[in-house]
Amino acid sequence: MTNDQTLNADPAVISLDTLLEHWQGHRRLTRRMIEIFPEDKLFTYSIGGMRPFSELVMEFLGMAVPGMKGIATGVWQLPQDLPHHQRKEKPATKQELLNRWDEATELINKLWSQTPNERFMETDKAFGQWEGPVYSFLLYWIDNEIHHRGQAYVYLRSLGIEPPAFWDRS
Amino acid sequence: MTNDQTLNADPAVISLDTLLEHWQGHRRLTRRMIEIFPEDKLFTYSIGGMRPFSELVMEFLGMAVPGMKGIATGVWQLPQDLPHHQRKEKPATKQELLNRWDEATELINKLWSQTPNERFMETDKAFGQWEGPVYSFLLYWIDNEIHHRGQAYVYLRSLGIEPPAFWDRS
Repeated sequence: MTNDQTLNADPAVISLDTLLEHWQGHRRLTRRMIEIFPEDKLFTYSIGGMRPFSELVMEFLGMAVPGMKGIATGVWQLPQDLPHHQRKEKPATKQELLNRWDEATELINKLWSQTPNERFMETDKAFGQWEGPVYSFLLYWIDNEIHHRGQAYVYLRSLGIEPPAFWDRS
Repeated sequence: MTNDQTLNADPAVISLDTLLEHWQGHRRLTRRMIEIFPEDKLFTYSIGGMRPFSELVMEFLGMAVPGMKGIATGVWQLPQDLPHHQRKEKPATKQELLNRWDEATELINKLWSQTPNERFMETDKAFGQWEGPVYSFLLYWIDNEIHHRGQAYVYLRSLGIEPPAFWDRS
Protein backbone atom coordinates (compact mmCIF):
# COMPACT_ATOMS: atom_id res chain seq x y z
CA MET A 1 0.00 0.00 0.00
CA THR A 2 1.39 3.41 -0.87
CA ASN A 3 0.89 6.52 1.18
CA ASP A 4 -1.40 7.96 -1.43
CA GLN A 5 -3.67 4.94 -1.34
CA THR A 6 -3.73 5.11 2.42
CA LEU A 7 -4.64 8.76 2.29
CA ASN A 8 -7.47 8.30 -0.14
CA ALA A 9 -9.07 5.22 1.30
CA ASP A 10 -8.46 5.84 4.97
CA PRO A 11 -6.40 8.80 6.15
CA ALA A 12 -3.30 8.00 8.14
CA VAL A 13 -2.95 9.80 11.45
CA ILE A 14 0.18 8.50 13.10
CA SER A 15 3.42 9.49 11.46
CA LEU A 16 6.72 7.64 11.52
CA ASP A 17 8.29 10.30 13.75
CA THR A 18 5.37 10.04 16.17
CA LEU A 19 5.63 6.25 16.22
CA LEU A 20 9.37 6.31 16.97
CA GLU A 21 8.94 8.96 19.66
CA HIS A 22 6.02 7.00 21.14
CA TRP A 23 8.23 3.91 21.36
CA GLN A 24 11.23 5.70 22.79
CA GLY A 25 8.96 7.49 25.29
CA HIS A 26 7.73 4.12 26.53
CA ARG A 27 11.31 2.88 26.57
CA ARG A 28 12.31 5.84 28.78
CA LEU A 29 9.59 4.83 31.23
CA THR A 30 10.79 1.21 31.18
CA ARG A 31 14.33 2.47 31.85
CA ARG A 32 13.02 4.37 34.86
CA MET A 33 11.41 1.14 36.09
CA ILE A 34 14.74 -0.70 35.80
CA GLU A 35 16.45 2.09 37.73
CA ILE A 36 13.95 2.08 40.58
CA PHE A 37 13.74 -1.72 40.89
CA PRO A 38 15.80 -3.05 43.85
CA GLU A 39 18.86 -4.78 42.40
CA ASP A 40 18.45 -7.99 44.41
CA LYS A 41 14.82 -8.30 43.30
CA LEU A 42 15.41 -7.40 39.65
CA PHE A 43 16.78 -10.85 38.82
CA THR A 44 14.74 -12.96 41.22
CA TYR A 45 11.41 -11.47 42.33
CA SER A 46 8.28 -13.10 40.97
CA ILE A 47 4.54 -13.36 41.63
CA GLY A 48 2.43 -16.31 40.48
CA GLY A 49 5.37 -18.02 38.81
CA MET A 50 5.84 -15.16 36.33
CA ARG A 51 9.30 -14.15 35.13
CA PRO A 52 11.45 -11.68 37.10
CA PHE A 53 11.53 -8.15 35.67
CA SER A 54 15.07 -8.58 34.29
CA GLU A 55 13.81 -11.48 32.13
CA LEU A 56 10.99 -9.34 30.82
CA VAL A 57 13.50 -6.59 30.02
CA MET A 58 15.63 -9.12 28.15
CA GLU A 59 12.53 -10.04 26.14
CA PHE A 60 12.02 -6.36 25.22
CA LEU A 61 15.69 -6.10 24.22
CA GLY A 62 15.43 -9.33 22.25
CA MET A 63 12.66 -7.82 20.14
CA ALA A 64 13.88 -4.22 19.84
CA VAL A 65 17.24 -4.17 18.06
CA PRO A 66 16.86 -7.59 16.39
CA GLY A 67 13.42 -6.39 15.26
CA MET A 68 14.72 -3.08 13.93
CA LYS A 69 17.49 -5.01 12.11
CA GLY A 70 14.76 -7.14 10.55
CA ILE A 71 12.86 -4.03 9.55
CA ALA A 72 15.93 -2.26 8.19
CA THR A 73 17.47 -5.23 6.35
CA GLY A 74 14.74 -7.86 5.89
CA VAL A 75 16.92 -10.35 7.81
CA TRP A 76 15.22 -11.58 10.99
CA GLN A 77 17.27 -13.20 13.70
CA LEU A 78 16.39 -13.64 17.37
CA PRO A 79 19.30 -13.25 19.82
CA GLN A 80 19.08 -16.93 20.79
CA ASP A 81 19.41 -18.00 17.16
CA LEU A 82 22.65 -16.09 16.58
CA PRO A 83 25.85 -18.11 16.12
CA HIS A 84 27.44 -18.70 19.52
CA HIS A 85 30.33 -16.28 19.08
CA GLN A 86 27.90 -13.43 18.24
CA ARG A 87 25.77 -13.87 21.34
CA LYS A 88 26.18 -11.36 24.13
CA GLU A 89 26.51 -12.32 27.79
CA LYS A 90 23.33 -11.85 29.79
CA PRO A 91 23.57 -8.74 32.00
CA ALA A 92 24.21 -9.78 35.61
CA THR A 93 23.77 -6.39 37.30
CA LYS A 94 21.33 -3.51 37.05
CA GLN A 95 24.06 -1.32 35.57
CA GLU A 96 24.84 -3.85 32.85
CA LEU A 97 21.14 -4.05 32.04
CA LEU A 98 20.89 -0.26 31.85
CA ASN A 99 23.97 -0.12 29.61
CA ARG A 100 22.40 -2.70 27.29
CA TRP A 101 19.20 -0.64 27.31
CA ASP A 102 21.03 2.55 26.36
CA GLU A 103 22.94 0.83 23.55
CA ALA A 104 19.59 -0.38 22.19
CA THR A 105 18.14 3.14 22.37
CA GLU A 106 20.90 4.44 20.10
CA LEU A 107 20.75 1.45 17.75
CA ILE A 108 16.98 1.75 17.34
CA ASN A 109 17.33 5.39 16.29
CA LYS A 110 20.19 4.56 13.93
CA LEU A 111 18.43 1.62 12.27
CA TRP A 112 15.19 3.61 12.01
CA SER A 113 16.98 6.45 10.21
CA GLN A 114 18.47 3.91 7.78
CA THR A 115 15.04 2.47 6.91
CA PRO A 116 13.23 3.87 3.86
CA ASN A 117 9.79 5.23 4.75
CA GLU A 118 8.00 2.87 2.37
CA ARG A 119 9.47 -0.12 4.20
CA PHE A 120 7.16 0.52 7.18
CA MET A 121 4.16 -0.12 4.91
CA GLU A 122 5.46 -3.35 3.42
CA THR A 123 4.23 -6.76 4.44
CA ASP A 124 6.84 -9.07 5.95
CA LYS A 125 7.09 -11.99 8.36
CA ALA A 126 8.76 -10.87 11.59
CA PHE A 127 11.30 -13.41 12.81
CA GLY A 128 9.87 -15.81 10.21
CA GLN A 129 6.70 -16.17 12.25
CA TRP A 130 4.36 -13.17 12.37
CA GLU A 131 3.05 -11.93 9.04
CA GLY A 132 1.72 -8.40 8.64
CA PRO A 133 2.59 -4.84 7.72
CA VAL A 134 5.92 -3.77 9.19
CA TYR A 135 4.37 -1.00 11.31
CA SER A 136 2.18 -3.63 13.01
CA PHE A 137 5.31 -5.34 14.38
CA LEU A 138 6.28 -2.06 16.04
CA LEU A 139 2.83 -1.70 17.59
CA TYR A 140 3.14 -5.24 18.89
CA TRP A 141 6.58 -4.72 20.44
CA ILE A 142 5.45 -1.48 22.10
CA ASP A 143 2.25 -3.11 23.41
CA ASN A 144 4.22 -6.09 24.67
CA GLU A 145 6.55 -3.78 26.59
CA ILE A 146 3.63 -1.86 28.13
CA HIS A 147 1.90 -5.13 29.05
CA HIS A 148 4.86 -6.74 30.82
CA ARG A 149 6.01 -3.47 32.38
CA GLY A 150 2.51 -3.22 33.91
CA GLN A 151 3.28 -6.60 35.47
CA ALA A 152 6.47 -5.13 36.97
CA TYR A 153 4.39 -2.28 38.45
CA VAL A 154 2.60 -4.93 40.54
CA TYR A 155 5.95 -6.44 41.58
CA LEU A 156 7.08 -3.00 42.78
CA ARG A 157 3.84 -2.20 44.59
CA SER A 158 3.88 -5.58 46.31
CA LEU A 159 7.42 -4.69 47.50
CA GLY A 160 6.05 -1.44 48.92
CA ILE A 161 7.76 0.72 46.28
CA GLU A 162 5.95 3.48 44.39
CA PRO A 163 6.48 3.02 40.63
CA PRO A 164 7.16 5.97 38.29
CA ALA A 165 4.12 7.81 36.89
CA PHE A 166 2.71 5.99 33.88
CA TRP A 167 2.02 9.21 31.97
CA ASP A 168 5.56 10.54 32.27
CA ARG A 169 7.51 9.65 29.13
CA SER A 170 10.19 12.37 29.45
CA MET B 1 -1.69 19.91 10.71
CA THR B 2 -3.25 18.59 7.51
CA ASN B 3 -2.71 15.17 6.03
CA ASP B 4 -0.72 16.66 3.20
CA GLN B 5 1.67 18.34 5.57
CA THR B 6 2.07 15.11 7.46
CA LEU B 7 2.73 13.23 4.27
CA ASN B 8 5.35 15.61 3.00
CA ALA B 9 7.26 16.19 6.18
CA ASP B 10 6.94 12.78 7.75
CA PRO B 11 4.85 10.03 6.18
CA ALA B 12 1.97 8.72 8.22
CA VAL B 13 1.83 4.97 8.63
CA ILE B 14 -1.08 4.19 10.89
CA SER B 15 -4.49 4.83 9.45
CA LEU B 16 -7.70 5.67 11.29
CA ASP B 17 -9.18 2.26 10.48
CA THR B 18 -6.06 0.56 11.81
CA LEU B 19 -6.14 2.65 14.98
CA LEU B 20 -9.80 1.83 15.67
CA GLU B 21 -9.25 -1.87 14.98
CA HIS B 22 -6.14 -1.82 17.17
CA TRP B 23 -8.17 -0.36 20.02
CA GLN B 24 -11.12 -2.69 19.60
CA GLY B 25 -8.73 -5.65 19.35
CA HIS B 26 -7.26 -4.71 22.70
CA ARG B 27 -10.77 -4.20 24.07
CA ARG B 28 -11.69 -7.73 22.95
CA LEU B 29 -8.74 -9.06 24.92
CA THR B 30 -9.77 -7.02 27.98
CA ARG B 31 -13.30 -8.44 27.62
CA ARG B 32 -11.81 -11.94 27.63
CA MET B 33 -9.96 -11.05 30.85
CA ILE B 34 -13.22 -9.90 32.48
CA GLU B 35 -14.88 -13.16 31.43
CA ILE B 36 -12.16 -15.39 32.83
CA PHE B 37 -11.76 -13.47 36.11
CA PRO B 38 -13.49 -15.25 39.04
CA GLU B 39 -16.58 -13.21 39.90
CA ASP B 40 -15.85 -13.03 43.64
CA LYS B 41 -12.32 -11.78 42.96
CA LEU B 42 -13.25 -9.31 40.22
CA PHE B 43 -14.52 -6.72 42.70
CA THR B 44 -12.18 -7.40 45.61
CA TYR B 45 -8.85 -9.02 44.73
CA SER B 46 -5.79 -6.83 45.05
CA ILE B 47 -2.00 -7.07 45.29
CA GLY B 48 0.14 -4.36 46.88
CA GLY B 49 -2.84 -2.14 47.61
CA MET B 50 -3.66 -1.74 43.90
CA ARG B 51 -7.25 -1.49 42.69
CA PRO B 52 -9.35 -4.60 41.96
CA PHE B 53 -9.69 -5.44 38.27
CA SER B 54 -13.32 -4.20 38.15
CA GLU B 55 -12.13 -0.73 39.20
CA LEU B 56 -9.52 -0.76 36.45
CA VAL B 57 -12.21 -1.77 33.96
CA MET B 58 -14.37 1.13 35.18
CA GLU B 59 -11.42 3.43 34.53
CA PHE B 60 -11.15 2.11 30.95
CA LEU B 61 -14.89 2.63 30.49
CA GLY B 62 -14.65 6.10 32.01
CA MET B 63 -12.14 7.09 29.34
CA ALA B 64 -13.56 5.23 26.33
CA VAL B 65 -17.06 6.53 25.57
CA PRO B 66 -16.67 9.87 27.41
CA GLY B 67 -13.40 10.27 25.51
CA MET B 68 -14.97 9.42 22.15
CA LYS B 69 -17.77 11.88 22.93
CA GLY B 70 -15.10 14.51 23.58
CA ILE B 71 -13.43 13.65 20.29
CA ALA B 72 -16.69 13.62 18.33
CA THR B 73 -18.23 16.74 19.88
CA GLY B 74 -15.43 18.73 21.55
CA VAL B 75 -17.32 18.47 24.87
CA TRP B 76 -15.30 16.65 27.52
CA GLN B 77 -17.03 15.23 30.54
CA LEU B 78 -15.82 12.51 32.89
CA PRO B 79 -18.55 10.15 34.19
CA GLN B 80 -18.06 11.44 37.74
CA ASP B 81 -18.66 15.02 36.59
CA LEU B 82 -22.03 14.27 34.98
CA PRO B 83 -25.17 15.64 36.66
CA HIS B 84 -26.42 13.11 39.17
CA HIS B 85 -29.47 11.97 37.18
CA GLN B 86 -27.25 11.15 34.18
CA ARG B 87 -24.85 8.94 36.09
CA LYS B 88 -25.13 5.21 35.65
CA GLU B 89 -25.09 2.75 38.53
CA LYS B 90 -21.77 0.99 39.00
CA PRO B 91 -21.96 -2.62 37.73
CA ALA B 92 -22.24 -5.02 40.66
CA THR B 93 -21.81 -8.30 38.78
CA LYS B 94 -19.56 -9.62 36.06
CA GLN B 95 -22.48 -9.78 33.67
CA GLU B 96 -23.37 -6.13 34.28
CA LEU B 97 -19.75 -5.19 33.69
CA LEU B 98 -19.70 -7.20 30.43
CA ASN B 99 -22.96 -5.56 29.32
CA ARG B 100 -21.48 -2.12 29.99
CA TRP B 101 -18.38 -3.16 28.04
CA ASP B 102 -20.44 -4.28 25.04
CA GLU B 103 -22.49 -1.07 25.02
CA ALA B 104 -19.23 0.88 24.98
CA THR B 105 -17.93 -1.20 22.07
CA GLU B 106 -20.93 -0.18 19.95
CA LEU B 107 -20.84 3.45 21.07
CA ILE B 108 -17.13 3.79 20.28
CA ASN B 109 -17.74 2.56 16.72
CA LYS B 110 -20.74 4.85 16.33
CA LEU B 111 -19.00 7.97 17.66
CA TRP B 112 -15.90 7.18 15.61
CA SER B 113 -17.95 6.98 12.42
CA GLN B 114 -19.52 10.35 13.26
CA THR B 115 -16.13 12.04 13.67
CA PRO B 116 -14.66 13.83 10.64
CA ASN B 117 -11.22 12.47 9.71
CA GLU B 118 -9.52 15.84 10.18
CA ARG B 119 -10.69 15.96 13.76
CA PHE B 120 -8.18 13.27 14.74
CA MET B 121 -5.35 15.62 13.73
CA GLU B 122 -6.64 18.63 15.66
CA THR B 123 -5.16 19.78 18.93
CA ASP B 124 -7.52 19.73 21.91
CA LYS B 125 -7.42 19.37 25.68
CA ALA B 126 -8.87 16.02 26.72
CA PHE B 127 -11.16 16.36 29.72
CA GLY B 128 -9.86 19.91 30.09
CA GLN B 129 -6.52 18.57 31.28
CA TRP B 130 -4.32 16.87 28.68
CA GLU B 131 -3.37 18.95 25.67
CA GLY B 132 -2.22 17.37 22.43
CA PRO B 133 -3.34 16.07 19.06
CA VAL B 134 -6.59 14.11 19.29
CA TYR B 135 -4.98 10.86 18.06
CA SER B 136 -2.54 11.06 21.00
CA PHE B 137 -5.46 10.75 23.45
CA LEU B 138 -6.43 7.49 21.76
CA LEU B 139 -2.89 6.17 22.04
CA TYR B 140 -2.93 7.09 25.72
CA TRP B 141 -6.23 5.36 26.45
CA ILE B 142 -5.12 2.22 24.62
CA ASP B 143 -1.75 2.20 26.43
CA ASN B 144 -3.46 2.77 29.76
CA GLU B 145 -5.72 -0.22 29.14
CA ILE B 146 -2.77 -2.45 28.16
CA HIS B 147 -0.82 -1.27 31.22
CA HIS B 148 -3.54 -1.95 33.80
CA ARG B 149 -4.70 -5.14 32.10
CA GLY B 150 -1.10 -6.37 32.45
CA GLN B 151 -1.58 -5.79 36.16
CA ALA B 152 -4.69 -7.99 36.08
CA TYR B 153 -2.63 -10.73 34.39
CA VAL B 154 -0.55 -10.86 37.60
CA TYR B 155 -3.71 -11.02 39.70
CA LEU B 156 -4.92 -14.00 37.65
CA ARG B 157 -1.56 -15.81 37.73
CA SER B 158 -1.31 -15.31 41.48
CA LEU B 159 -4.76 -16.94 41.71
CA GLY B 160 -3.42 -19.89 39.74
CA ILE B 161 -5.44 -19.02 36.61
CA GLU B 162 -3.93 -18.95 33.13
CA PRO B 163 -4.76 -15.62 31.43
CA PRO B 164 -5.77 -15.41 27.74
CA ALA B 165 -2.95 -15.16 25.19
CA PHE B 166 -1.72 -11.57 24.87
CA TRP B 167 -1.32 -11.81 21.09
CA ASP B 168 -4.88 -12.98 20.45
CA ARG B 169 -7.09 -9.98 19.59
CA SER B 170 -9.81 -11.90 17.78
